[in-house]
Amino acid sequence: MRELTLEDLDDMVLGATLLGAGGGGDPYIARLMVRQAMEDFGSVMIASPDELDPDGLVLTTAVIGAPTVISEKVPAGPEFVGCVTSLAAFLGKKPVAIMPIEVGGMNTLIPIAVAAEMGLPVIDADSMRRAFPQIEMTVFTLAGIPASPMSVADEKGNIVVFQTTTNQVAEKLARASVMQLGMANGISCYPMTVAQVRKFGIQGSMSYCVDLGRKLSAVQRGEVGAYDAFLEFSGGHKYFSGKVIDIDRRTTEGFAKGTLVIEHLTDPTRTMRIEIQNELLMAFEDGKPIVTTPDLICILDHENAQPITTETLAFGQRVDVIGLPCAPEWHQEGMLELVGPKAFGYDVPYTPMEGARK
Amino acid sequence: MRELTLEDLDDMVLGATLLGAGGGGDPYIARLMVRQAMEDFGSVMIASPDELDPDGLVLTTAVIGAPTVISEKVPAGPEFVGCVTSLAAFLGKKPVAIMPIEVGGMNTLIPIAVAAEMGLPVIDADSMRRAFPQIEMTVFTLAGIPASPMSVADEKGNIVVFQTTTNQVAEKLARASVMQLGMANGISCYPMTVAQVRKFGIQGSMSYCVDLGRKLSAVQRGEVGAYDAFLEFSGGHKYFSGKVIDIDRRTTEGFAKGTLVIEHLTDPTRTMRIEIQNELLMAFEDGKPIVTTPDLICILDHENAQPITTETLAFGQRVDVIGLPCAPEWHQEGMLELVGPKAFGYDVPYTPMEGARK
Repeated sequence: MRELTLEDLDDMVLGATLLGAGGGGDPYIARLMVRQAMEDFGSVMIASPDELDPDGLVLTTAVIGAPTVISEKVPAGPEFVGCVTSLAAFLGKKPVAIMPIEVGGMNTLIPIAVAAEMGLPVIDADSMRRAFPQIEMTVFTLAGIPASPMSVADEKGNIVVFQTTTNQVAEKLARASVMQLGMANGISCYPMTVAQVRKFGIQGSMSYCVDLGRKLSAVQRGEVGAYDAFLEFSGGHKYFSGKVIDIDRRTTEGFAKGTLVIEHLTDPTRTMRIEIQNELLMAFEDGKPIVTTPDLICILDHENAQPITTETLAFGQRVDVIGLPCAPEWHQEGMLELVGPKAFGYDVPYTPMEGARK
Repeated sequence: MRELTLEDLDDMVLGATLLGAGGGGDPYIARLMVRQAMEDFGSVMIASPDELDPDGLVLTTAVIGAPTVISEKVPAGPEFVGCVTSLAAFLGKKPVAIMPIEVGGMNTLIPIAVAAEMGLPVIDADSMRRAFPQIEMTVFTLAGIPASPMSVADEKGNIVVFQTTTNQVAEKLARASVMQLGMANGISCYPMTVAQVRKFGIQGSMSYCVDLGRKLSAVQRGEVGAYDAFLEFSGGHKYFSGKVIDIDRRTTEGFAKGTLVIEHLTDPTRTMRIEIQNELLMAFEDGKPIVTTPDLICILDHENAQPITTETLAFGQRVDVIGLPCAPEWHQEGMLELVGPKAFGYDVPYTPMEGARK
């Protein structure tokens, strides 16, 4: 186990926000929550599954809702410890570690704040190594691990515990509750053992956030060769640099959905269209798919290389569109049915990125 | 305690269906469920709260959803025992009795079937002595008793347990789950002690169903003076006899809503309009309110005096419209805010029935 330092934390925030692929929440509030939690409760240890009792219970936590709402109705705190402790009570067992369910500016950090408050380590793994809009969109679903028992909590003390027959029903029920509880809540799902995390989780995803963030931070400082080193490390590619000329965004059915159009900086005949459902899911140029889910579409500020989340996209922004290959653990049977373009209603084939399997 | 006989059961079904005020479910399926449960598990005892341990846990059960859907997606059975046993597990306590939450063709009988299967008595009380469309519309809410912890289950094994801050939030969350689980589910709510049932419940409502059903049964057999005796016993009044000339019904927001228009049998210049939200809630003649919630509007077949539930109302039916005063326990502070016309969005004052307070 190693202690999470404040320097690590800054790099982690940057890497996690990038890997949120436009979703996963804005890191600003979550970063304050983690700093406050560390001040109040002490530092947090990051653990590898190998360092914990294989039979120990791991509980996850995340914010669930629409990013457009989460940025206004900011997470208060009690909903996250609340969903974890109520799920633990339902299961009649205490957790030995907390785990993020996805990577994102908010959803990598909130588990750290919860772990600090509960005096537990955070496990260095997750189930996406990116953000996805729905609960069932995890490598755990591909491994047949149920999302339930699962809990949703709000900041007022309302708690809902679910026991469902499929992870798709779990998603529908949780979403229905979230829509009644203000569209920004805490969730704890996929309770499992350390041994299951070891076998089926995406390993080292917190460390990966730190390492990737460090590379991007060098880009932000304008170091020579840093952009190439960042792309080399991540297997990524810069596809487009342009100006946001249209952004259509609506909060509907429990999600923030929308379409973004970017005009090329130097060649105005070229435009890129990006489809959003909480995350940036599909990038097209001239109707041709360029980057498709589950590979990552990330938008950086063209001037300072700061990742931009979907709820802060605005007309006139100058941006770079980067594609990153998804975590190799995704490439297994069932991936495209669960998180490929058709899973989101786009009748477009998955277009693997160059280097996606590296 | 006394055993529920098959003769009692037939009268109870008739009385309960009448007191459902158009809602509470069609009794046909529920009656088959009770008979089957009695055959499989033996007879059921009806208990007064005075005959049980005052500290014992009482759990309720009912079908929740839209009557229009319930009549097609018929209750299967496991969802009712399922919601009761999962709530008991959540509470970590075993119940000593089962209680109906409302009176209605289905919702008086389902608790009997569950009690038979679980080997428990049914308590002779409820929280409405009629049917109402929403969970918080009980005399328990007036007494400040929380609806949660509460559970909803479907026939496939999906279970949701709720812990909520108010009974209004409980209603919204349960409704949202029901809309995802097929619109016809089992619910268990308002867990309480026998002593609380004794103090705050509507006493003797199962016996009242039997007695009222017996009076109505005499009307159906055409006994001389039976109609008057029935109205005398119930404090009721026949307001209108007519033919259904319009029925507009839609299943929306988790409820069956609609409007019914009846033309007078002998004076075609007179029409009665009745507003429906699962139950018959408001009766108007020439725009003037005649019977208003929480008093009961009941529709009987004009020929055979059989109660007609809202989902079986049809164009051309000849019907009698009866008003019955609500249970006297409703007449306390907070009644009109909770179950008066304005609680359902009708900007009309409550118009007490003659004899409503008897």
